[in-house]
Amino acid sequence: MTSPPDARRAVVVGTGLIGGSLGLALRGRGWHVTGRDLDSGRAERAVALGALDAVGHDPAAEITFVCTPVSSIAAEVRAALAGGGVVTDVGGVKAPVVAAVDHRCYVGGHPMAGSEQEGVDGADAELFEGATWVLTPTVDTDPRAYALVQSVITSLGADVVALSPQRHDELVATVSHVPHLTAATLMALAADGADEHAAVLRLAAGGFRDMTRIASGHPGIWPDICAENRDAIVDGLDRLVGSLSAMRDLVQRGDRGGLLAALERARAARVHLPAPAPEPEHLVEIRVPVPDRPGVLAEVTTLLGELGINIEDLEIAHSAEGPRGVIVLVVEDTAADDARKALVAQGFHPSLRRLS
Amino acid sequence: MTSPPDARRAVVVGTGLIGGSLGLALRGRGWHVTGRDLDSGRAERAVALGALDAVGHDPAAEITFVCTPVSSIAAEVRAALAGGGVVTDVGGVKAPVVAAVDHRCYVGGHPMAGSEQEGVDGADAELFEGATWVLTPTVDTDPRAYALVQSVITSLGADVVALSPQRHDELVATVSHVPHLTAATLMALAADGADEHAAVLRLAAGGFRDMTRIASGHPGIWPDICAENRDAIVDGLDRLVGSLSAMRDLVQRGDRGGLLAALERARAARVHLPAPAPEPEHLVEIRVPVPDRPGVLAEVTTLLGELGINIEDLEIAHSAEGPRGVIVLVVEDTAADDARKALVAQGFHPSLRRLS
Repeated sequence: MTSPPDARRAVVVGTGLIGGSLGLALRGRGWHVTGRDLDSGRAERAVALGALDAVGHDPAAEITFVCTPVSSIAAEVRAALAGGGVVTDVGGVKAPVVAAVDHRCYVGGHPMAGSEQEGVDGADAELFEGATWVLTPTVDTDPRAYALVQSVITSLGADVVALSPQRHDELVATVSHVPHLTAATLMALAADGADEHAAVLRLAAGGFRDMTRIASGHPGIWPDICAENRDAIVDGLDRLVGSLSAMRDLVQRGDRGGLLAALERARAARVHLPAPAPEPEHLVEIRVPVPDRPGVLAEVTTLLGELGINIEDLEIAHSAEGPRGVIVLVVEDTAADDARKALVAQGFHPSLRRLS
Repeated sequence: MTSPPDARRAVVVGTGLIGGSLGLALRGRGWHVTGRDLDSGRAERAVALGALDAVGHDPAAEITFVCTPVSSIAAEVRAALAGGGVVTDVGGVKAPVVAAVDHRCYVGGHPMAGSEQEGVDGADAELFEGATWVLTPTVDTDPRAYALVQSVITSLGADVVALSPQRHDELVATVSHVPHLTAATLMALAADGADEHAAVLRLAAGGFRDMTRIASGHPGIWPDICAENRDAIVDGLDRLVGSLSAMRDLVQRGDRGGLLAALERARAARVHLPAPAPEPEHLVEIRVPVPDRPGVLAEVTTLLGELGINIEDLEIAHSAEGPRGVIVLVVEDTAADDARKALVAQGFHPSLRRLS
């Protein structure tokens, strides 16, 4: 498969599972993708697997995805920005990187997608279909850079949720980092027991297997993540320890009502966990006239992100008559009223139009 | 489907998910199964679904499975024993029930199998295929009762592991009860965050979904389980809180080496978690001459159970020449040497013979 000469051009830096999957997904949509990796053998492997057109640099690329380990993202993003174009990344921690880069053509990103596969050989063109993909615009982000990243990611089938870098890091500590460390801890405790009683692992049925599955991944990325997101993870672990201690006291006291209430609350929350990738059937366009000042795009998108509202499409329309513009957002109709109220509460004057 | 007139006969008390699955599995193997339930509509439903031949009692049954909630098992087991035959149960906590019943024709049991389905409508004839099924013989257990329960359960495709009731309860706290309470706690913490930031639940990707899936089950059984297995659960939660606090300190200190070592250890344990239901290809028969004294069957079987060794088949051969017998065990060849050493260390004189 070779890309057509007029193909849109992207670069992927770091061709592991995510970088390789991005290459496959973009090439499947007609893009020309150039990639590189510190491990040149891995980049060559990505070419062999059809995830890249070429190894190296591409000054003509309109977008670069930095898919390296967290500790080297900031340096790679800066290097990519020096070459021009818009740059985004896929790191699991955002605030330190966003602060270190601080450039209007960089938009922090984090696809909430993974796989038990490892490396480029596990790459999958469908990896992002229906996945939530966080973007972390700031007051300095160029709205056109944001709109470009949003549109490319949406074209891969992902649901974009905009959050501030700090909020992303807090929330991801709760739903990813702390659960990961907890899975490892549960597994280690069972293994401790197994030193004495091998039977314990024979008793590990489906629920335990589900809970500890993520502990089977390579731990190499975790020291970086724990260092970069230390405060949120420590806070999350403190809250978990507090809650487990409260649970222990309910069991110790034989407080049946308290136990039932705690479990019932968790059950209700789990049952209502939003399903990944609902295909929206009915869409509403929200037009938000905005002053042409820095940060208004980040303000509007993260306002909706905080409410868990996925922005299906986004466009920046600049007014011909002065220093104003219009942000055009497309959201599911079920979310439209919440979005409108939140925008009005912040002093915006949105107008809604049903699309389908 | 009607059972042949010479069919073996079983009774199932409590026709929920497990009782219904037992009925389906036994009837599929030619048994005549009678059942009852406090909720007579549920028993009728089990008949309609093909899980029972009839509702009521069956004085001719050779085995009764008590599949009621934990708090009523002891009373139901005693009632069933009064009717004759061998009785077993499927409760998730064993020591209190076994102590309360204390009868030579009762063998405590616990299939480590479940389903996200609920009630008899979720019943599945294949539920026990490859599942680990714990039996908890004591010094008072009649070896013939044990051998009967073992053979019936094995015929359903389950792997039998014998453990003392106390050991079962400790181990199941580690791999089932504490993980369940932890899943609920993680889910509740994420939901707390969602009150403020709905986005948190949009970020909950595959790993978090896997970890919290068991929290979506009906919590009704948990107050009983937590009451009956209180000490082991409190101890398990204490150990978990201690380990999570240690993990928190590693993160706080930025101890990369310590963190990596902890995660690497968990990974190794998770990767080596024994796969459920390996079909043994090569079997070894172990003949263990035993004195004809109480408890020797429990001693031999739980000795192997502690090592995580599944007993594929078991037979009690009584000697014609005096107060001795032979316990004939069949195990996988990979486990045979460990089994032999453990038996020798306890003063037995086992002999081994390769079967396949």
